[in-house]
Amino acid sequence: MATAVQILCVVAYKGPGGTTAEMVSRSLRTNPVVVRRMLKSLERRGLVEIRPGKDGGVQLARAPDQITLADIHSAVETESGVFALRPGRNRNCPVDSRMRELLGPIFGAADIAVETTLKQTTLGSLVDRIA
Amino acid sequence: MATAVQILCVVAYKGPGGTTAEMVSRSLRTNPVVVRRMLKSLERRGLVEIRPGKDGGVQLARAPDQITLADIHSAVETESGVFALRPGRNRNCPVDSRMRELLGPIFGAADIAVETTLKQTTLGSLVDRIA
Repeated sequence: MATAVQILCVVAYKGPGGTTAEMVSRSLRTNPVVVRRMLKSLERRGLVEIRPGKDGGVQLARAPDQITLADIHSAVETESGVFALRPGRNRNCPVDSRMRELLGPIFGAADIAVETTLKQTTLGSLVDRIA
Repeated sequence: MATAVQILCVVAYKGPGGTTAEMVSRSLRTNPVVVRRMLKSLERRGLVEIRPGKDGGVQLARAPDQITLADIHSAVETESGVFALRPGRNRNCPVDSRMRELLGPIFGAADIAVETTLKQTTLGSLVDRIA
């Protein structure tokens, strides 16, 4: 999550002209392959536009104040949520057979609480404090 | 987290007489070593009492309605929080050098939101719905 936010901050910081995955990877001191993979996820969710080819690069697909941290989170987090449920296949046990049903709504509420928090911050508000 | 809650639900479900790590591991269909390691963490945080020896076992250290899911979470989660910050040691980059400072409070707010959610549910309220 921190990596994805930083990638978008660099792209936003560079402005409308955009930048390249190589330049972003230099900011993060990470492998350009990691950056490109994450940019692909962000492109699929409509957060960046990637121009392929020799003069290629990456730029934001919409204004930074139209991108919240919740948008970024849902674009890059592949796990099911903050907490994972156990399979719960032990029908002989009265506890095990009820756990998914009992914990599912609570874990779901934790996910919503995180999303609500992340929605309150836009990429634009972060970049304003860098520029 | 789901494993720790289930361990405590089994212990609570078994009542004042307590149970053993072996019996708990049968409910979860997991290795007793995993259960014992987690029980140790729960003991350190004052949630269970472990009686060693041949007639040993485990029981709750306080009433199930005095244990919230936030208590359980803080006893067993070893990671720093929902989201991890990057090291941010690239002083040459204006973005990288600000990211920890900008994201720290936001990630902290996400942790607090999760804790607030988990505080609303007690172990007792879960076990009441199993028994």
